[in-house]
Amino acid sequence: MEAGGAPGPAAGASLLLCAALLAAGSALGLWLGRARGAADRGALAWLCYDALVHLVLEYGKADARWLHSDPTIVSVEILTVVLAGSLALLLIYAIVKEKYYRHFLQVTLCVCELYGGWMTFLPQWIVGSPSLDTSSWVYLWIYMGFFNGVWVLVPGLLLWQSWVELKKMHHKETSVRKKFR
Amino acid sequence: MEAGGAPGPAAGASLLLCAALLAAGSALGLWLGRARGAADRGALAWLCYDALVHLVLEYGKADARWLHSDPTIVSVEILTVVLAGSLALLLIYAIVKEKYYRHFLQVTLCVCELYGGWMTFLPQWIVGSPSLDTSSWVYLWIYMGFFNGVWVLVPGLLLWQSWVELKKMHHKETSVRKKFR
Repeated sequence: MEAGGAPGPAAGASLLLCAALLAAGSALGLWLGRARGAADRGALAWLCYDALVHLVLEYGKADARWLHSDPTIVSVEILTVVLAGSLALLLIYAIVKEKYYRHFLQVTLCVCELYGGWMTFLPQWIVGSPSLDTSSWVYLWIYMGFFNGVWVLVPGLLLWQSWVELKKMHHKETSVRKKFR
Repeated sequence: MEAGGAPGPAAGASLLLCAALLAAGSALGLWLGRARGAADRGALAWLCYDALVHLVLEYGKADARWLHSDPTIVSVEILTVVLAGSLALLLIYAIVKEKYYRHFLQVTLCVCELYGGWMTFLPQWIVGSPSLDTSSWVYLWIYMGFFNGVWVLVPGLLLWQSWVELKKMHHKETSVRKKFR
C-alpha cells in the first residue's frame, strides 16, 4: 500500500478489475433478466456485480484496518462475504424464478449491506479516521465516495422496490379477500 | 460496576427493572393485540417490551465497553436506540392496523437486531473478550446468556413468521392472477 500522494499502477490495475467485474456482472444480470421488466433487469445486473465483488474482491486499498485485522472490520467482513455473498446469489435465483421469498431476501440483503457500511465507517469517524488514507484523490473519491455511495444508493433503491411490490401484493390480496367475503 | 464475585444489590435492582419492563411490555402488547391471533399477540407483546428496553434502558452492566465509549459499541448503540426503537414502535402500529408495510418493517427490524448482536459480541470474541465480565454467574448467564439468547431467538421467530406470511400472500396473489387470466 502506498503511503499517500499519487496513486501508482496498482491502483490503476484494481480500478480496471472493478470495471471488468462491473461489465461482467451487468452483462450476466441483463442476460438472466432478459424476459423481465426494466427494474428487475437493473436489480439482477446489480446483484450479479454485488455477488462477484463480495466473492472475488474485497477492498483493502483505502482502509488500513482491513489489512491489519481490526476486529470490527473482520466481523463485518465475515458477514459480508459469507452472508451477503450467499444472499445475493439466492436472491438472483429468487428473482429469475419469481419465488415467494424474493422480497424477504431482498430486504434482508439490503439491510445487511447498509448496516455493514454504517459499521465500517462510523466507528472510524467517531475516533477521527486514523486508518482512512484520504491523501490521494483516487482513494478518497473513487474508493470512499463512489463505491460506498453506490452501496448506499442501490440498496436504498432495492428497498424502495420491495416496499412498493409488497404494497401492491398486499392490496391485491386484501381486495380479493373482501370480494369473496 | 463490581469487580467480580457475588453480584450486589445493584444487579438485583436492574433485574427487577427488567422484569417490570417485561411485565409492562407484555401487558400492553396483549391488550393491543386482543383482537388478533396468538402469533400476532406474542409479536406485539415482544415488540412493546423491545421498544421499552431500547428507549428506556441500555445494558452497561456486563460489558465494560458500553461504559467507556468503544467506537464499535457506540455505532451499534446509535442504530439500536434511534433506529430499532423507532422501528419497533412503527411495527406495533403496522401490526395493529394491518398495514401493507408490516413485514417490510418486521424483516428490517429483525435483521438489525441480529446484526447488532453479532457486532456487539463477535469483535470481542475475536480478541479474547477482555471487556466481558464473566466472573459472576448473574452477569454471565442472566445478562449474556439469557438476554442475548432471547434477542436471537425472538427475532429469528419473527423472521420465520414474516417468511410464512409472505409465502401465503404470494401464493394467494399468483393463484388469483392465474384464475383471471
